[in-house]
Amino acid sequence: MKWDGDALLMLDQRLLPMQTEWLRLTAWQEVEEAIREMAVRGAPAIGIAAGYGMALAALRGDNQEAARTGLAASRPTAVNLFLAPDRVAEVPFEFESVLRVAQRVEADDLACNHAIGRNGANLVPQGATILTICNTGALATAGHGTALGIIRTAHEDGKGVFVYSCETRPRQQGLRLTAYELLHEGIPFKSIVDSAAASLMQAGKIDLVVAGADRITANGDSANKIGTLSLAVLAHHFGVPFVIAAPTSTIDGDMASGDLIPIEERSAEEITHCEGVQIGPSGVQVYNPGFDVTPGDLISAIVTERGVFQKPYDFALEMSR
Amino acid sequence: MKWDGDALLMLDQRLLPMQTEWLRLTAWQEVEEAIREMAVRGAPAIGIAAGYGMALAALRGDNQEAARTGLAASRPTAVNLFLAPDRVAEVPFEFESVLRVAQRVEADDLACNHAIGRNGANLVPQGATILTICNTGALATAGHGTALGIIRTAHEDGKGVFVYSCETRPRQQGLRLTAYELLHEGIPFKSIVDSAAASLMQAGKIDLVVAGADRITANGDSANKIGTLSLAVLAHHFGVPFVIAAPTSTIDGDMASGDLIPIEERSAEEITHCEGVQIGPSGVQVYNPGFDVTPGDLISAIVTERGVFQKPYDFALEMSR
Repeated sequence: MKWDGDALLMLDQRLLPMQTEWLRLTAWQEVEEAIREMAVRGAPAIGIAAGYGMALAALRGDNQEAARTGLAASRPTAVNLFLAPDRVAEVPFEFESVLRVAQRVEADDLACNHAIGRNGANLVPQGATILTICNTGALATAGHGTALGIIRTAHEDGKGVFVYSCETRPRQQGLRLTAYELLHEGIPFKSIVDSAAASLMQAGKIDLVVAGADRITANGDSANKIGTLSLAVLAHHFGVPFVIAAPTSTIDGDMASGDLIPIEERSAEEITHCEGVQIGPSGVQVYNPGFDVTPGDLISAIVTERGVFQKPYDFALEMSR
Repeated sequence: MKWDGDALLMLDQRLLPMQTEWLRLTAWQEVEEAIREMAVRGAPAIGIAAGYGMALAALRGDNQEAARTGLAASRPTAVNLFLAPDRVAEVPFEFESVLRVAQRVEADDLACNHAIGRNGANLVPQGATILTICNTGALATAGHGTALGIIRTAHEDGKGVFVYSCETRPRQQGLRLTAYELLHEGIPFKSIVDSAAASLMQAGKIDLVVAGADRITANGDSANKIGTLSLAVLAHHFGVPFVIAAPTSTIDGDMASGDLIPIEERSAEEITHCEGVQIGPSGVQVYNPGFDVTPGDLISAIVTERGVFQKPYDFALEMSR
């Protein structure tokens, strides 16, 4: 994302890695649509987009509350969508002030990710093979990334890491976006289908699993991309450490446990169609949750910019410090 | 598959469910290619195809041993590929005799599947919700199916079953073929991505997992479509019964354990391309095992035409009875 005077330029991630196209968004409603339709995705990135959406609302003299409510409702699971609009509420609703808040949210996220990378890289053994899911890199954040930020920092530290990247059905953010970032960084990796993770762990080929989070509740339960729970259970079964990486802005200390997190259900076409071509038979019904919730007790550590937390988690307490 | 005088007619499953096209195969080498390229798939079905391949070899006066070796090597994991050629070796290598053996292999498989369906349906509670993976139905066998045969018989018994069908990446046999069969049978179901199975089990929505097998070793270790091991570990974690359904021809009682089973690795394009369209970035490397091995101790029961076996499994003993 780039701010361009009176518009938000946004790389359309739905077209990556095969096409690089930038959207030019000039109203908060266009930002809301871009989030909902997943031109931008990743909890930190959509939180940043919401901040710039508020700046567009201020620029055009739109109603602040309507913009806040609309942007916050664009996707239900990530808590980050509330962060920028809430911080905007602390300043006068005029363009320059709101833009400064949005830019600060973005800068803060980038700083967080470098700190997460540093804190997390300390947990990565020399020569580790790391499994990850979805895209938690520069494309999902202000830059560097969360779970992928740990991999980046470990790679920069000369740890000699190797990555297995889960495809991440249905939208294949792992195959499309994480692979794109890893190729660009020169970090050695292979892509796998999500269901191949078990056989890699069974063969003792995975030293660490890292994943991001869209919302973490007070007890450490973590909502993340569908498939994350499966990796956590497998890691537990095969004795592999399972780490969540996220900025503390992802922690919803007011929510007691993960069963309270709203889980978005997405369209059948994400599964039955590929690149616009129908694959499944006509008439097939689909259950397509976008996220699942990993219980805190399956999470070895939660890495944030403020440090590494370990179970039992009590973020209601931690976040009030 | 249908025998047509001097040729094997084979429904090209790669084009289902969107197109129905029959291949006309007139030489064992064409049958070998159809198995290798997965125009036909499913351990029992490729075993039957190999039988008709031997009949074509006899019809054309080809070398018996070359045909046997070639067909058996078309795919490495399923043990069924050896069955028909081995039975053919017990009769004179002349067309009519070999064709009769091939037809008997097919008829035996159909009878097996009805018996598996009957034996397995007794394990299905009234109103059960059943999770399955890949395609183990009429398209994978001589008819009725193995794991899907249990679902079919339970449905016919009026058990009121509901099915969640895993998509089964990379080739999506669940979304393409199992959905096609379930729609045709009027069995209520929803398709899911493979990685959504965990959240369904976590929510207590799955009463039973059923899967097929491509090879079962003496200790009950079972090779099956990639992703099966993941479901078995999840079922174990969430306390859901996990059942393998297969004819005893799938049991390789001479092989001690699953780590000895050769696991086929398939092409990167199965993952990076969809319907011929490139999805993953150029240069991405892929690890694409076709199968994984579920340890016998994660399998609640193995349902065969000869009855239901439970752990600890000792098929070296059982198969010699």
